[in-house]
Amino acid sequence: MNDQNGYDIEDLQVGMTASYAKTITEADIGMFAGVSGDINAIHLNEEYAVTTPFHGRIAHGILVSGLISATIANRLPGPGSIYMEQQLKFLAPVRPGETVKATVRVREVILDRCQVVLETTCHVKGILVIDGVATIKVGSAARRAAKLAKATSA
Amino acid sequence: MNDQNGYDIEDLQVGMTASYAKTITEADIGMFAGVSGDINAIHLNEEYAVTTPFHGRIAHGILVSGLISATIANRLPGPGSIYMEQQLKFLAPVRPGETVKATVRVREVILDRCQVVLETTCHVKGILVIDGVATIKVGSAARRAAKLAKATSA
Repeated sequence: MNDQNGYDIEDLQVGMTASYAKTITEADIGMFAGVSGDINAIHLNEEYAVTTPFHGRIAHGILVSGLISATIANRLPGPGSIYMEQQLKFLAPVRPGETVKATVRVREVILDRCQVVLETTCHVKGILVIDGVATIKVGSAARRAAKLAKATSA
Repeated sequence: MNDQNGYDIEDLQVGMTASYAKTITEADIGMFAGVSGDINAIHLNEEYAVTTPFHGRIAHGILVSGLISATIANRLPGPGSIYMEQQLKFLAPVRPGETVKATVRVREVILDRCQVVLETTCHVKGILVIDGVATIKVGSAARRAAKLAKATSA
């Protein structure tokens, strides 16, 4: 672990998982519209949204993807990690008031590059709403120790 | 165009582009932390962030990606489009106060599936900060006309 309680590359093993769940509120959707500039009527206009195949407003896909970012940043690999890549498939809508559970699972540990590949999913009541893969750069306890030893011996 | 002024599949051609630019403010970063739950110190804690290779706080990558979502939803293909997939590579940091320009460019039009593949980029002062590809489902003027003709003749 690093000094912020995040995992180093040496701590990570294929199959490790972490989750984070949060209710997507009306306020979240309004704030994300302002933050991003995405004012699509499907997110903000109920009278329009009920006429679409979604039968009502839905949350922005990228807003919901933020819960994957939170799981990575806060839990696995946690603080100190750097987001390099994220692939996302938006498979089903998320409605205001629904609770999303984001889960990440270690698929591959690339020791020499200090990178980890994660399977990243979001579920609502067991239904897969977002599927994807992320690549994250993390620190290395071995490299920190080597650097310290070199500095001490110099 | 559909009745919300969004493009139909028949309107789209390879090479069409659209952009949207927005300043990423301190308020955006604070709101996105609350909306997503991503409270990584690199986004919120200046005293920590200055000790990292970024030398200060940076915006969440997924927050910045929201500008791609906005460009797609508001401009190209515009209202009525449905976000199916997004690949993202986070290449350089975005700092509070910097203005991000998101651009989408039509790479492929898949007429029979009513889908369009877009190259999606974000730049800050000409520097590529996010690169990616999106797949979007759009409507079809021809299919609407056929449906209407069938309903009228029935």
